[in-house]
Amino acid sequence: MSERVTEPAAPGGAPTLEELRQRLVDFAAARRWEPFHTPKNLAAALSVEAGELLEIFQWLTPEEAAGVMSEPERAHRVRDEVADVLAYLVQFCTAVGVDPLEALAAKIERNEHRFPVPEAPGVNTDVNRDVNRDVGDQPL
Amino acid sequence: MSERVTEPAAPGGAPTLEELRQRLVDFAAARRWEPFHTPKNLAAALSVEAGELLEIFQWLTPEEAAGVMSEPERAHRVRDEVADVLAYLVQFCTAVGVDPLEALAAKIERNEHRFPVPEAPGVNTDVNRDVNRDVGDQPL
Amino acid sequence: MSERVTEPAAPGGAPTLEELRQRLVDFAAARRWEPFHTPKNLAAALSVEAGELLEIFQWLTPEEAAGVMSEPERAHRVRDEVADVLAYLVQFCTAVGVDPLEALAAKIERNEHRFPVPEAPGVNTDVNRDVNRDVGDQPL
Amino acid sequence: MSERVTEPAAPGGAPTLEELRQRLVDFAAARRWEPFHTPKNLAAALSVEAGELLEIFQWLTPEEAAGVMSEPERAHRVRDEVADVLAYLVQFCTAVGVDPLEALAAKIERNEHRFPVPEAPGVNTDVNRDVNRDVGDQPL
Repeated sequence: MSERVTEPAAPGGAPTLEELRQRLVDFAAARRWEPFHTPKNLAAALSVEAGELLEIFQWLTPEEAAGVMSEPERAHRVRDEVADVLAYLVQFCTAVGVDPLEALAAKIERNEHRFPVPEAPGVNTDVNRDVNRDVGDQPL
Repeated sequence: MSERVTEPAAPGGAPTLEELRQRLVDFAAARRWEPFHTPKNLAAALSVEAGELLEIFQWLTPEEAAGVMSEPERAHRVRDEVADVLAYLVQFCTAVGVDPLEALAAKIERNEHRFPVPEAPGVNTDVNRDVNRDVGDQPL
Repeated sequence: MSERVTEPAAPGGAPTLEELRQRLVDFAAARRWEPFHTPKNLAAALSVEAGELLEIFQWLTPEEAAGVMSEPERAHRVRDEVADVLAYLVQFCTAVGVDPLEALAAKIERNEHRFPVPEAPGVNTDVNRDVNRDVGDQPL
Repeated sequence: MSERVTEPAAPGGAPTLEELRQRLVDFAAARRWEPFHTPKNLAAALSVEAGELLEIFQWLTPEEAAGVMSEPERAHRVRDEVADVLAYLVQFCTAVGVDPLEALAAKIERNEHRFPVPEAPGVNTDVNRDVNRDVGDQPL
């Protein structure tokens, strides 16, 4: 199975996020795991899994990190941790009643105002050097 | 705008993950942020944002956490952090060439074999008490 | 070996943080790991290990979490992850030239001004309910 | 106040970890924050603060990260986040009855057996390339 970044429109292609969300709901219900799936626990689990994804990269140089998918064992770990992060994010969103796609669409719109496109080439957009920015500000 | 967990099939509804992914690609390109968006940096940023989501819950009792969306300021923060986590996850996946929906579908299939449904009601599925499980094992 | 929270003053007791720091420096030098120990890598590793400590607690109720040290296997994991977090924190501090004990002493002094002691019993100090506080504010 | 990595033996120098631990206990007691300081909450807070330390470095190149302390504003943030991580680690240890210095001393001894010093120069100690190592293994 090759990696594709785009979602195919064709039938039989990759599932939608909503289809996967429903499978996760059914999976947890069948195993009676719902009591564990509180918003606080799921936020903790999401953070733990994001840490496991980062663990793959922690000692790598930028060059080694860029080639991470060329080693099958590491590539499998990356896909596995991506799946865990997405699973817990979707389950968290279900627990609190948030649509993650709507939340992201709204955030992109806010960021288009917060970070206007530089008017001319060569403008310094190094977000780390602008000490006037709020510390918590993050580029998308 | 009300929160919906399901993605509407109707036109004009929530965007697909692929549409949002493309907007994020365009957004970063217009601001010349691509050089910052290495796999290692994005994995770090994803972990940082997951921590910011967890921060909302860190001092809350389970009961307070369950009602987090009833306070508008906190509800906004939750949606904002969900958006950041999803944005960095999608951008990370773009950087390494992984389809997150395919990765999650494959993981759910593996987990259906790893964690079979208990045959009878009352089976103890408390994942934390089973010391024979691999420490890293996680329920979805 | 019983757990003690206090550092013994007696000879032959627990080592000082500085003694452990020097052992970590020697340990890394003997294995030629210094090139990996950049500030950025060590900050990532610290975050990953903090996530592994949190993983032990992620599905536990507050009551189960309070009794975590009564199960030998979990108690060992807790001590192991505490050691990893402290090791990476000390190594990070060495890499950037920060004395963690001085940094903490200075922070406690700042916090004594930021969070004055309530004058009377019964004052509401629930930090999560005060929406005027900066989102990033944290009680020590 | 200059940064020093070593703890001075002289009177009036940096406090010991145990002295700081006691100040943190008193600080929390005076503000009636003990009910929030459960092991699970403190493990979450520790992870959140480690993420905030990592945030400083997330977009920096290795070269920029190496010079992080030469900018006063960033240097202050680094010391501040180091203090937060250490504070929560110490408070977590108090909550579960673990001596962090003993835990680290024991871990260093275990690691001296797990990762023997290479016998000859030039031995490959790249921990990321050894696929036989447990994925969770970490060099100190």
